Amino acid sequence: MTRRLIGLQELEDIAMGAAVLGTGGGGDPYVGKLWAQERIRARGSVELIDADDLADNDLVIAAAMMGAPSVIVEKIPSGEELAAAFHAVEEACGGQATAVMCIEAGGINSTIPFALAADLGLPVVDGDGMGRAFPEVQMVSFAAHGLSATPMAIADEHGNVTVLRSISAEWAERLGRALVVAEGGASVLAQYPLRGRDFKRAAIRGTLSLALEIGADLRRAGRQSRPVIEALTNRLGGAVIFHGKVVRLERETAGGFVRGGVVVEGLEDLAGSRCEVKFQNENLVAIADGSILASVPDLITLLEEESAHPVTTERLRFGMRVYVLALPCASLWREELGLAKAGPRCFGLDLDYIPFEQRLAAR
Amino acid sequence: MTRRLIGLQELEDIAMGAAVLGTGGGGDPYVGKLWAQERIRARGSVELIDADDLADNDLVIAAAMMGAPSVIVEKIPSGEELAAAFHAVEEACGGQATAVMCIEAGGINSTIPFALAADLGLPVVDGDGMGRAFPEVQMVSFAAHGLSATPMAIADEHGNVTVLRSISAEWAERLGRALVVAEGGASVLAQYPLRGRDFKRAAIRGTLSLALEIGADLRRAGRQSRPVIEALTNRLGGAVIFHGKVVRLERETAGGFVRGGVVVEGLEDLAGSRCEVKFQNENLVAIADGSILASVPDLITLLEEESAHPVTTERLRFGMRVYVLALPCASLWREELGLAKAGPRCFGLDLDYIPFEQRLAAR
Repeated sequence: MTRRLIGLQELEDIAMGAAVLGTGGGGDPYVGKLWAQERIRARGSVELIDADDLADNDLVIAAAMMGAPSVIVEKIPSGEELAAAFHAVEEACGGQATAVMCIEAGGINSTIPFALAADLGLPVVDGDGMGRAFPEVQMVSFAAHGLSATPMAIADEHGNVTVLRSISAEWAERLGRALVVAEGGASVLAQYPLRGRDFKRAAIRGTLSLALEIGADLRRAGRQSRPVIEALTNRLGGAVIFHGKVVRLERETAGGFVRGGVVVEGLEDLAGSRCEVKFQNENLVAIADGSILASVPDLITLLEEESAHPVTTERLRFGMRVYVLALPCASLWREELGLAKAGPRCFGLDLDYIPFEQRLAAR
Repeated sequence: MTRRLIGLQELEDIAMGAAVLGTGGGGDPYVGKLWAQERIRARGSVELIDADDLADNDLVIAAAMMGAPSVIVEKIPSGEELAAAFHAVEEACGGQATAVMCIEAGGINSTIPFALAADLGLPVVDGDGMGRAFPEVQMVSFAAHGLSATPMAIADEHGNVTVLRSISAEWAERLGRALVVAEGGASVLAQYPLRGRDFKRAAIRGTLSLALEIGADLRRAGRQSRPVIEALTNRLGGAVIFHGKVVRLERETAGGFVRGGVVVEGLEDLAGSRCEVKFQNENLVAIADGSILASVPDLITLLEEESAHPVTTERLRFGMRVYVLALPCASLWREELGLAKAGPRCFGLDLDYIPFEQRLAAR
């Protein structure tokens, strides 16, 4: 049995590590971290349990925010609506949850489940449905395994609670997004109520302890960021694919998403003179001088040169010096099942997925 | 105890009468009528009961379609989704309904409750929440009396069922409309679950038997429409305010509504040379040569000259000869409470409400 307690420092590290896995999206972890730390201060540390600690019949429910990260950071919910959404799903399932889960390993959605867990006195289970961040409800390992996203409940800061029973995760995305937009661009939700046995077979496991380790590494980096970043990247099977300065930035918040792109001008000779990273909440593709370096579902993450801190899309600034990292996605996303849910074409990109390691080797 | 059976002929008449009370909106009654008649043919006539027949603790739920009438007429639901929405509200209320109600006296929403009632073996109660048709969830006598529109369930033809618990009818409208638009522009719903005692104090009563009488009158009119129309109008306390030919027509379906206007060129000297009627699903205001003849919440209804049949906004055609009728709304809508929910300013019209009788007397 693997259990560890998540207190203030651990939350700090998870937030940082989850921002790396969040590949620019998932909402800036800073706000979610503050909230979760406040709840941990009030209610005590939260237990992080291993998937194997779940009994087959245990009920696990994901707690998250949905909406454009640029709105999320300015529209932090009270704990009440997250609990309201969570309890609404429990009621719709006719049972009580034994653990809270993170739907994604990325940004705010890796920290606010700890705030809820502290309030409810529940553990958080170590794993999630993506192993990174993705922007849409159906881009989840559970959906790829045929498990239902609903009953799903969306709650807003006014007190509105809506329970969806949808025929597919794609419909839960479409209807949920419409509600979130009508509620102002970001709301909280509870979704993917799963039995322990289903979590164990379909989750991307161990991603929260991974985030914790990544965060602890980067915290210790300080100003000596380059060697720490390279060691970390190598350990994760990834690569530093570009290093440069932000010279162009386009962002638009519409339809419950942030879409846009950033252009980085090279500061050393890695892959060309300019690298463009396009995003829909998360970074989708990195293109240097017209040739693709990496694409979804692989992870593309920007780290600030000075601090080694990951940079979310809404925190990007003109003139910022960044490293562009490519990290391998969970193996599910490289299979047919996973590519059907979250391959490049699911994001409107007209390109075939090639693992970034192959792209690098071919250069 | 006043009970009558609604069979095929009665349904025909209710559909016609409800189109008069529907003031151009509520969806063309033709499609709803066909559906209800089919269900009555299969399951037998439906009992129309008086509000006083309800016990104080009886549960009554409204069944309706929501969306742009122009979409509704091309997107008729199966009986299954209406029953699914109805049962979802029963479940959310923890009880079984004893009667079905119409949320409005107008168009399709005065006929499809009979289809559901036939399927479920329930009576329909004689009355509704508007005494006419209005386009939005909060424009209902029950809301004006402080009763909740939710739990409200929206169901679509795919099998998606969503249950809303909203803090106000205005929020139920906003979130429900967003769902309906995401579902293709029209869906079915169940809403305003009420106890018998609340229906009795807050409903506009007797509106279905009124629709039945109006429909029977018009059915007997045949080609001699003018005297029948005038007799009917007088009996209802209304007036024929214009008579002419459609010379301009603008309609736009967007955001779950049909908005636009029709210009009628006068064929006799009643109120001027041209009369414009503006609508948002329902007719909102009639203006002749720059001066207002009638406005919401009073009823403005167009009848085809040739047949005496009411014309809904989506059936209007260039060159059609019509009478424009003004009919008094239920007294609630002329009070402060009612005007706050459905006065001209609720529709974005920059004008004060003056009962059409006063406007006519002042001319």
